[in-house]
Amino acid sequence: MDIRVATDDDLDVAADMLHAFNSEFGDTTPGPEALAARLRELTDTDVLLAGEVGVAVLRFRQALWTPGLECYLAELYVRPGERGHGIGRALLSTVLRHARTRGADMIYLGTTEDDVAARHLYEALGMRRTEGAAGPLMYLYEKDLA
Amino acid sequence: MDIRVATDDDLDVAADMLHAFNSEFGDTTPGPEALAARLRELTDTDVLLAGEVGVAVLRFRQALWTPGLECYLAELYVRPGERGHGIGRALLSTVLRHARTRGADMIYLGTTEDDVAARHLYEALGMRRTEGAAGPLMYLYEKDLA
Repeated sequence: MDIRVATDDDLDVAADMLHAFNSEFGDTTPGPEALAARLRELTDTDVLLAGEVGVAVLRFRQALWTPGLECYLAELYVRPGERGHGIGRALLSTVLRHARTRGADMIYLGTTEDDVAARHLYEALGMRRTEGAAGPLMYLYEKDLA
Repeated sequence: MDIRVATDDDLDVAADMLHAFNSEFGDTTPGPEALAARLRELTDTDVLLAGEVGVAVLRFRQALWTPGLECYLAELYVRPGERGHGIGRALLSTVLRHARTRGADMIYLGTTEDDVAARHLYEALGMRRTEGAAGPLMYLYEKDLA
């Protein structure tokens, strides 16, 4: 499986997968064209592609508590028909190396309690639930402001 | 209580509180001087102050799924001797207005399950646990890359 950093030419394929991702979970999406345009605007973002069947979106910014960058893995998706063959694992493994190469001190992501396959993958690659396995759970809160 | 957007001159006070915040919870801190220098470097960040006893750090970036900004409330702190008098609530209320004014579509933050006072405050001001109260919990995962 060819895993590579997307160039501008790849962003239509990436946007198509991101649109499919949110559609699969019933989440809002502005559509593939708007997503591709947005990806081209974002200067703090790298997109990794696994062939044309997997995509990861990494967002970087300067960390507050350390001198380096922090990386937020905003999206990680493998097309439904391609799951169970290690593509997500290979993609995440490349994500971790790429983030480190780009100067990130740490990487973080959010996932839901019921996505057991994703949690298993994250833990297999050395990610830990925030506050440590023995510490309190970390909740995310959000509020729409629009 | 005077709540204001910090100017460069306020960032030493802000950094002193952030250092105290992490020290209170046994978390790593580079010290108040390094924090003040970092706050001066960050171009994507606003700091709000409640007098000299409360601080909030807001980090903005372009959202992927919507045309606006997303705001991450990275830090929210009130000095221990000043808690229980509504300063955190007044500060958070100002944070929400400020983020909207700056063009944020949504705001999010992380908190631990055992911080019941903070969770109560967030819910009182209309924030919801991600995925909705009836949906699955959202976990945060992280990994040090350094």
